[in-house]
Amino acid sequence: MNRNLEEYISGYVDGEGCFSLSFSRRNKMLVGWETKPSFSVSQNQERAEVLYLIQKRFGCGFIRRDYSDKTLKYEVRSLDDLLKKIIPHFVTNPLLSSKQDDFLKFRKICLMMSKEKHKQSKGLKEIMKIAFTMNPGGKRKYTQAMMICSLDEDIVNTDGNIR
Amino acid sequence: MNRNLEEYISGYVDGEGCFSLSFSRRNKMLVGWETKPSFSVSQNQERAEVLYLIQKRFGCGFIRRDYSDKTLKYEVRSLDDLLKKIIPHFVTNPLLSSKQDDFLKFRKICLMMSKEKHKQSKGLKEIMKIAFTMNPGGKRKYTQAMMICSLDEDIVNTDGNIR
Repeated sequence: MNRNLEEYISGYVDGEGCFSLSFSRRNKMLVGWETKPSFSVSQNQERAEVLYLIQKRFGCGFIRRDYSDKTLKYEVRSLDDLLKKIIPHFVTNPLLSSKQDDFLKFRKICLMMSKEKHKQSKGLKEIMKIAFTMNPGGKRKYTQAMMICSLDEDIVNTDGNIR
Repeated sequence: MNRNLEEYISGYVDGEGCFSLSFSRRNKMLVGWETKPSFSVSQNQERAEVLYLIQKRFGCGFIRRDYSDKTLKYEVRSLDDLLKKIIPHFVTNPLLSSKQDDFLKFRKICLMMSKEKHKQSKGLKEIMKIAFTMNPGGKRKYTQAMMICSLDEDIVNTDGNIR
């Protein structure tokens, strides 16, 4: 049977996928923070076939166990792979839920990163503002709130006026 | 843009959908049990657009709140709609994970029901055997175990030799 796997993957990702940004304290970096984009798709270990299919189709990323909730997670963290393989797929086959808004923000941030905006205080501030409006009401809500608190403290300590 | 929504829906359902059977005690029925097939798709209320899209596309079923986990659920319970609208879709656009096994069992049971097999003790026994191998490792694992215990008791009480 002749399948349209691109659409199938977009449908699957609309349910199970996540576009997210995280930030890590890195004192040795000029701006003090590492910006880490991630595209991930989770599934119960019992039926992880689709994760392997997605990995094969995209030709990048890795699959690992998430011990916190006993799922398997397919994840792409490489900015180059995100820009060349993941993002073009969802431009051609957009998500149909409001998760598409997160994708567009994610795409914007990745494009900013390709111009090294995250390595300057002004650019990072803009990226953070966008990032913290992503995934509203998602599973990571409380983690995000904790991150914001932590970031506020650290940012104030770093330059006193970034937010 | 010309989308292939059929594949998109199959991808979405592979992640978020469920084919299930439940049984209710009905003393006024000859065999003592009502067999209830259900196709459902769940999503957070914040981004339920895809559920409305699926409902529109299938032209059947209803959307309701699931107060137990604060999700919205699209559900089709009508055997006629399942046989004429839902099942043909997944025959043409099969699931790619092992959830497809559940779909095939679900389809088999619905076809048996269309021949009224569930209204005879022998047919119901066969349907139950298939139904309780569905959704292994799913969220409803413990509920299924409880159902099996309850059914065993009730079945023994009813005719003493159905299992």
